[in-house]
Amino acid sequence: MQRTLTRELPQRIGQRVLLEGWMHNIRSFPDFSFLILRDRTGNAQVILEPGPELEKLHGLQNESVLRIEGTVVEEERSPLGVDVRDAWITVVAPVTEIGPFELNKKVLKPSLDVFLNHAAYGLRHPSRIAVFRIMSTILAGYREFLLSEGFTEISTPKLVGGATEGGANVFPVQYFDRTAYLAQSPQLYKQIMVGVFERVFEIGPAFRAEEHATSRHLNEFTSLDLEMGFIESQRDVMDMLRRVLQAMIEAVRTRNAREVELLRMELPRIEEIPSLKFREAQQMILERHGEDRSQEPDLSPQDERWICEWGEKEHGSQFVFVTHFPSAKKPFYSFPDPEDPEYSETFDLLFRGSELVSGGRRINDYAQQLEVLEQRGIDAQPFEGFLEAFKYGMPPEGGFAIGAERFLARLAGAENLRETTLFPRDINRLTP
Amino acid sequence: MQRTLTRELPQRIGQRVLLEGWMHNIRSFPDFSFLILRDRTGNAQVILEPGPELEKLHGLQNESVLRIEGTVVEEERSPLGVDVRDAWITVVAPVTEIGPFELNKKVLKPSLDVFLNHAAYGLRHPSRIAVFRIMSTILAGYREFLLSEGFTEISTPKLVGGATEGGANVFPVQYFDRTAYLAQSPQLYKQIMVGVFERVFEIGPAFRAEEHATSRHLNEFTSLDLEMGFIESQRDVMDMLRRVLQAMIEAVRTRNAREVELLRMELPRIEEIPSLKFREAQQMILERHGEDRSQEPDLSPQDERWICEWGEKEHGSQFVFVTHFPSAKKPFYSFPDPEDPEYSETFDLLFRGSELVSGGRRINDYAQQLEVLEQRGIDAQPFEGFLEAFKYGMPPEGGFAIGAERFLARLAGAENLRETTLFPRDINRLTP
Repeated sequence: MQRTLTRELPQRIGQRVLLEGWMHNIRSFPDFSFLILRDRTGNAQVILEPGPELEKLHGLQNESVLRIEGTVVEEERSPLGVDVRDAWITVVAPVTEIGPFELNKKVLKPSLDVFLNHAAYGLRHPSRIAVFRIMSTILAGYREFLLSEGFTEISTPKLVGGATEGGANVFPVQYFDRTAYLAQSPQLYKQIMVGVFERVFEIGPAFRAEEHATSRHLNEFTSLDLEMGFIESQRDVMDMLRRVLQAMIEAVRTRNAREVELLRMELPRIEEIPSLKFREAQQMILERHGEDRSQEPDLSPQDERWICEWGEKEHGSQFVFVTHFPSAKKPFYSFPDPEDPEYSETFDLLFRGSELVSGGRRINDYAQQLEVLEQRGIDAQPFEGFLEAFKYGMPPEGGFAIGAERFLARLAGAENLRETTLFPRDINRLTP
Repeated sequence: MQRTLTRELPQRIGQRVLLEGWMHNIRSFPDFSFLILRDRTGNAQVILEPGPELEKLHGLQNESVLRIEGTVVEEERSPLGVDVRDAWITVVAPVTEIGPFELNKKVLKPSLDVFLNHAAYGLRHPSRIAVFRIMSTILAGYREFLLSEGFTEISTPKLVGGATEGGANVFPVQYFDRTAYLAQSPQLYKQIMVGVFERVFEIGPAFRAEEHATSRHLNEFTSLDLEMGFIESQRDVMDMLRRVLQAMIEAVRTRNAREVELLRMELPRIEEIPSLKFREAQQMILERHGEDRSQEPDLSPQDERWICEWGEKEHGSQFVFVTHFPSAKKPFYSFPDPEDPEYSETFDLLFRGSELVSGGRRINDYAQQLEVLEQRGIDAQPFEGFLEAFKYGMPPEGGFAIGAERFLARLAGAENLRETTLFPRDINRLTP
């Protein structure tokens, strides 16, 4: 008999079916037992009466893998609208030891640390299944939209010869008889590839040797990168960002309705995104909160919260762009605003209280890039292979990077990025 | 004026359009010049008469970025069926130095090493653009098919605590005050995730500290991984492999017709794939080629070529499965054939002369896995986080991994994997 998925049961009323899955729960009463069987599409309720079939479950713990042949009967009080009765049970993989915590309670009880130590087990909790199913949709939504916009997907090396985003925070790798580094981002490679495909994206791991194990940092994360040429200004990049976020959120809304409901996620609507220049944001903070930030070269976490409050109050938007950060604080490839080169065509997108995306326009002129490197006292030689892309004709271009785990955390209201990462890596954690 | 892509020109006859792209070629005659402008969709031919517009190109080299406003006129002799005339030119990014080799000749002239040294420039050659556009389609085809089959995409860590596929060939990373390793594959993680989602896939980098810089090995490659539960035997995994390969090839056939033609690629048809057990393959080699392989625990490159010859001749198939390799030569998670445990439910898929995919069924029983580890003298402790997935109920499962660059090389008839890798990594090459 071919397997039926639990989701298909309502279409099989009156039929004999074969189910396969995990024993999610069992509740026993004198006259019958309710067995909840979990498969990748949901849960089925199986009604077992005392007898040899129920006996087969004797001594088995939850998460045992079962094959159940049974008859689908209509049952209004059951969540699926059906129950399975007259079951024949085969034990496929017995579990004899009680798990480290319960998977069939609404809320996960263990501390985050205990949970992560037992991720192989804990990720089976319905709330975790829902979160990481949404992650899969976020990745799919990102790619599908960009492919439809003429982007080409690329895979660039994670083993690199030098640090791209500055010398700190980089992991050294023993690469035969020399030292390589783990890429902090695909930045230089995606810029090169604008010369080839105009529009490129990459989904891949990025590595930061961040020594602080805070809730907001991971040492390895999934970076949703994009770079596009023939732009007029960074506005074109910001528009593309808005549209791809819309597409991702729409994908989650339509494909993960059940998961969104289970997690009580509130998916934001994105219409126009309000935008403040960095100095305007500081001015707004001075006016509304009486704090003078004019000597600060960057936004503090408190600034970001205030800016998001402003966006919500004045524009009804959970997203706010802050643009034109001081050039000196931005990487060497950032494009200085021609009208005010002390500031750059760079942006952060803030969402629900803090930064979600960084991006901007890049320098595309070879001579200008060489000049900036010299001004900053950076040796151009290690960047030769990158600079060649500019020497031989690069259109105005820009891009951004979204941290996938961060986006999902913000959507799901998770306080710690470790809740939206399958197997997080930090200074204290390298397993499982 | 909004930009028109060169592909759209045949629909704009008689209209004034704005094109943007790279000066791919220019050929000058006394009365006029042919300028070929390349953008992400193809090439346009622009007819320039002597005068101030043509003057603007004086001293510029190919790859200069241009903006061209002109009128689209029908021209049968032109590849697109149209030319662009009455052009106004804006030089967006001038190139003043001749590139290291020519991009507008059919065949790339430089040696592979020179080409790779100038990848940022050389990847703009139309043959390279075609190859890596097909790579993008291969990735998209893989994902789209698997999502439609109920798979969930996962992202698992590339920084790991120990070697998964054996102790050699692994890159050590200085991870704060200890040593981490770069994942050789997502093997153990994708197996864990079968317990969560039943069916998972991942596209990501994999790292092998392979010391030999042969045409068939890279130190970093893109691994198309898959793992699925509730299988009856490895046949289910092999079927899924056949179907996903069909889907990928079909995606290339329909989305990259132009690239396939340019590269003169012959896309294989996959119907039924013939299959030999390892010992049957050796027997076939003895019978057809008189070579006794019965003492060999693995296939040699010559064996693989012979087996592919057999597949082509006897079954008209460029793909051949070889199954049931000796258990002792396969990793500890390989499932021993219950009828003949000296051999395992493992397979290689050979394609056009050599191995393309490895896969198989895995041990899903906790006690059995512990026993195999003990037999092999492998300490179970480092695998604790992995083994937990089996302790708490794992269905029969299996999977495989396809090297994306290898698949593309075999499809494109490329002799060296470095031709189908954007920025290849080997013992001698870490840049660009």
